[in-house]
Amino acid sequence: MVLDEVNYPEDLRKLNTEEKNVLAEEIREKIIETVSNTGGHLASNLGVVELTMAIHSVFDCPKDKIIWDVGHQTYVHKILTGRKDKLDTLRQIDGLAGFPKTSESEYDSFDTGHSSTSISVALGMARARDIKGENHKIITVIGDGALTGGMALEALNDAGSSLSNIIVILNDNEMSISKNVGGISMVLSKLRTKGFYVKSNLKGKKLIGEIPFVGKKMVKLIQRAKRGIKQLVIPKMYFEDIGFRYLGPVDGHNLEKLEDILKICKEQEGPILLHVLTKKGKGYKPAEENPDTFHSTSKFEIETGKKIGGGQNDWSGAMGDKLVALAKENKNIVAITAAMAGGTGLSEFAKKYPDRFFDVGIAEQHAIGLAGGLAREGLVPVVPIYSSFMQRAYDQIVHDICIQSLPIVMIADRAGIVGNDGETHQGLLDMAFGNTIPNLNIMAPKDYKELENMLEFAVDLRKPVLIRYPRGTEEIQFECQTPVTLGKAEILKEGTEVCLVAIGKMVARAYKIAETLEEKGINATVINARFIKPFDDDLLKDKLKNASVVATIEDGTVKGGLASEVERVIVDNKIKDVELIKFAYQDEFVKHGKTEEIEVRHHLDNESIVKTIMDCKKLKVRLSLKAIKNRGQKCLKMIENNMKLKKSQTK
Amino acid sequence: MVLDEVNYPEDLRKLNTEEKNVLAEEIREKIIETVSNTGGHLASNLGVVELTMAIHSVFDCPKDKIIWDVGHQTYVHKILTGRKDKLDTLRQIDGLAGFPKTSESEYDSFDTGHSSTSISVALGMARARDIKGENHKIITVIGDGALTGGMALEALNDAGSSLSNIIVILNDNEMSISKNVGGISMVLSKLRTKGFYVKSNLKGKKLIGEIPFVGKKMVKLIQRAKRGIKQLVIPKMYFEDIGFRYLGPVDGHNLEKLEDILKICKEQEGPILLHVLTKKGKGYKPAEENPDTFHSTSKFEIETGKKIGGGQNDWSGAMGDKLVALAKENKNIVAITAAMAGGTGLSEFAKKYPDRFFDVGIAEQHAIGLAGGLAREGLVPVVPIYSSFMQRAYDQIVHDICIQSLPIVMIADRAGIVGNDGETHQGLLDMAFGNTIPNLNIMAPKDYKELENMLEFAVDLRKPVLIRYPRGTEEIQFECQTPVTLGKAEILKEGTEVCLVAIGKMVARAYKIAETLEEKGINATVINARFIKPFDDDLLKDKLKNASVVATIEDGTVKGGLASEVERVIVDNKIKDVELIKFAYQDEFVKHGKTEEIEVRHHLDNESIVKTIMDCKKLKVRLSLKAIKNRGQKCLKMIENNMKLKKSQTK
Repeated sequence: MVLDEVNYPEDLRKLNTEEKNVLAEEIREKIIETVSNTGGHLASNLGVVELTMAIHSVFDCPKDKIIWDVGHQTYVHKILTGRKDKLDTLRQIDGLAGFPKTSESEYDSFDTGHSSTSISVALGMARARDIKGENHKIITVIGDGALTGGMALEALNDAGSSLSNIIVILNDNEMSISKNVGGISMVLSKLRTKGFYVKSNLKGKKLIGEIPFVGKKMVKLIQRAKRGIKQLVIPKMYFEDIGFRYLGPVDGHNLEKLEDILKICKEQEGPILLHVLTKKGKGYKPAEENPDTFHSTSKFEIETGKKIGGGQNDWSGAMGDKLVALAKENKNIVAITAAMAGGTGLSEFAKKYPDRFFDVGIAEQHAIGLAGGLAREGLVPVVPIYSSFMQRAYDQIVHDICIQSLPIVMIADRAGIVGNDGETHQGLLDMAFGNTIPNLNIMAPKDYKELENMLEFAVDLRKPVLIRYPRGTEEIQFECQTPVTLGKAEILKEGTEVCLVAIGKMVARAYKIAETLEEKGINATVINARFIKPFDDDLLKDKLKNASVVATIEDGTVKGGLASEVERVIVDNKIKDVELIKFAYQDEFVKHGKTEEIEVRHHLDNESIVKTIMDCKKLKVRLSLKAIKNRGQKCLKMIENNMKLKKSQTK
Repeated sequence: MVLDEVNYPEDLRKLNTEEKNVLAEEIREKIIETVSNTGGHLASNLGVVELTMAIHSVFDCPKDKIIWDVGHQTYVHKILTGRKDKLDTLRQIDGLAGFPKTSESEYDSFDTGHSSTSISVALGMARARDIKGENHKIITVIGDGALTGGMALEALNDAGSSLSNIIVILNDNEMSISKNVGGISMVLSKLRTKGFYVKSNLKGKKLIGEIPFVGKKMVKLIQRAKRGIKQLVIPKMYFEDIGFRYLGPVDGHNLEKLEDILKICKEQEGPILLHVLTKKGKGYKPAEENPDTFHSTSKFEIETGKKIGGGQNDWSGAMGDKLVALAKENKNIVAITAAMAGGTGLSEFAKKYPDRFFDVGIAEQHAIGLAGGLAREGLVPVVPIYSSFMQRAYDQIVHDICIQSLPIVMIADRAGIVGNDGETHQGLLDMAFGNTIPNLNIMAPKDYKELENMLEFAVDLRKPVLIRYPRGTEEIQFECQTPVTLGKAEILKEGTEVCLVAIGKMVARAYKIAETLEEKGINATVINARFIKPFDDDLLKDKLKNASVVATIEDGTVKGGLASEVERVIVDNKIKDVELIKFAYQDEFVKHGKTEEIEVRHHLDNESIVKTIMDCKKLKVRLSLKAIKNRGQKCLKMIENNMKLKKSQTK
């Protein structure tokens, strides 16, 4: 195999074209094989095999720097930069990350994970280079979907007017994660329809220096067709208008052409935009046909493309189903997605109510602003966004929703630990950052049924609401389903020694822990907090006064969520002699791994929690006292019985 | 006066052109007079007098809706919509707000304050209208500066590809707050240089339907000048590329022409962009000449334009001066602003170190991403942004800075209560939202000297730092200046009965309060917390154990900042019998008024705080005990003295 001989970019550079083409196929096979075992981002990686090889052939990394926008398309890059042999550990705990990490390799020049950040970062690196008087190259690879993100547009605007040498490679696959939307996508698709190819660009530096589209040939074209001009020059114009030199479009699966045009890019001055056309899933039929479902996939069967495991309804699906049902009755319900209709359970809604469904592209800020406008006019927008991407809209939640207390239902999907995607994708902050915002009501359901009830409650509340739930499926289907009331917690079990206060998916955990504790003779109260805000001070106050040990259990950061609320209740109500154990993620970023593994490592699995509670000194004292009391009572009983016996004997 | 007869848009519509032109001047005079007394946004309002009048002449508000981007340019609108007689209460407590408020008038259709939100909101309202089968018009007025904000670009992208009827009026004054930057501004300025004016647009609907720039005349132009085409068609192309119908540019101070073109806009279908050219400060010479300083102004002398009061160095200036000094020694320091070089104290830095200074336009997300790139390559970016605008970059602080723990110094200027700008501009959340982010170090100085020390410390720390300080000037220049150490608080005064823990500007307040308490015989400890994160648990723990009453005093929300940290320390360390009084803003939005008035209303002025502390039961008990003890000791002393006396007498 050619791949056996290739570990670093310098190995790649020794190969001839034929060998490189063989290598491309071998890399594809390796990625398909790996991801079929580990799960991960398949379609996007298969789409950039040649592009990544061409970049590493032409540029000199790590001296030259590549910033991978979003970063899920870096498997090829990892294979070619010394990490080939660890690829089977991809996304596994302590293994290779699924995204670039500066801590993993000097070839990874910046950590990415969220969309639309790369041009900002590249421009920063370019300016640093210029200040330091260095002269390496800085390349970003950004998808057409990521270009709808405001941060990328802000950066394009700045980069275009700068004189900095940066090369922005637009990896245009007509996809963000779902189908691309919006005006910029229109601009790009106009070009694709025409199939226009600026071949002259490839011939040399001199020709590039000129502006081919206003050449004689072009003028003729303009005269011929009024609208023709727009379709021909738009993408070029669009980017050149804001100060970029535009090259391309070039076939992203033709290695030779890619290398040729990249060599030209390398020699240009100023900001360059290279437009590359690629196909998501290229070379693996199931992924080519369904790039959406193979964007981020679980394990699968290579021959058929069939997913292994999964298939049961998850939290997103439960939300989507209920929303469709509610929308049937309530014509005011509308739904908004930021390029994640499938992932957030909105596909069915989109099909059933296309006029009340809006996909705004990767544009979380605009999604919330749009919701504000809809809400102001009396509709009830439901906006599910992955928790870690919801961070993008913090200011909009404050400024465009909560100041006016507008009725919108924001949903933090993939809240808490998401597992193998790691640091950039963990949704640990939503309860905490939401809690800082006045007028926002924050809740989390214990199971699907409660999610359904909360969704209905939230839609009717006519106030700003944030509902959060995790990736995956419910753990327990609870029988107890008391009606959802604003700011009221739910008692699932009454006990004496320990009080467990949990929220969201951790309520199921608390319930199981209570069972385990019971087996050990410890009686626990289980409270389903339901709301972070407004928080049920009254109930908690009562319960805390009678408990000697209280444990908060949450799938989020320890700073600002459930634990902080309980601390506040303790201090506000001057509750004495209570021991608070806070089960939560510490104030740190959490790396990738299976959710269950991460939970064990952070002592948040059942066993660890039970052990920590059992080890609590205060509980031990209380149990000893209880035991002494019990033994005392037993002795008393024995003495009594003895007395009775003696009495009866003497009778 | 014509203005005497005009209260609502219908009155305006009765006037002929001549009367309207007189009215425009009267409105200008009224605004200049008012703002010279109240302070406020002058230049932008003088720039939109005719535009606002034309909109209200042509459209039928409140049925038709206007969304004012940023919203500081709505004084004319307020005058014309029933609020003329209250204009003297502008920005004063309980008076008219300086921004549109739905709670103030049915003519204000959405609350704004931050930049770049209006197109999202307008599109939401348009979609709501379409769903409900209504047919009113929705107009946004957005400045060219606000167009660099990512949220506006995301929304343009979505709106352009929608079929919704919205009218986006681009109020192009070649300014954001400072001079405009970036590629989009290049696009617009190319047009302005050419002075090209699509007169045909004004002649009627039919002509508008055509695309004038590809007509015969244009083709000739194209043949003549290679680059000519770009300069002629760029703004039109730019917006039409992404799906808008483009009209204009039109002279924004010519009422007749404005009304004509707005009438045309009114009859068009789909998304329209109307390009209007205005002059900031129009009609008031000092403001025309210095639109920057008259953007947001304090009181001033009308004849001369001289500002009344002010002039002393403020927090921003103290930061800017120190930064210039540090940058002289440390060549790695760079500075970034998001269109606020003057406001954030960076003007001198920009002049002295132009190669190390970057104005990215209104683009807070990109500002932080750019800083990430610069920091990754070894530089130390200092990024001052007003606290309430820093909210825009929450995700970037998490994702692009703190995950990699990059050395950047973010500065939340205008933190805490900013006063007359009100709800949208209060910087109450920075400590709280910052506190949710791992790896972020958060500090606030008590005076300029400490700010200087903190800035130097932060630059050398090589970790992510957030420094916050308020609008205005330092209250006390402290003598005590212990060296800044990571996570260490400073004791300013040792006492016994009460422990005051304050941060930032509130340290001066705590110090004064301690003096007042001392006069009343109460001995207070004063702690300058300095850091919210890492928090000085050790010091606090010690002090809290010995105090019976602790007061936290902060210029921020009660949720997640200093108060929450002290609550945590109390619970973590099982500190009993301590009464915590939390002086902070409650979990609510705070309306406009002078900072001092707001503080009184929220019981955060010296007097209120002293009173609340004195009223504390626990303190009263402690004081009674102390009094009894004192009296007891006095009695003892008297008895002793008596005894001594007797003894000496008996001797």
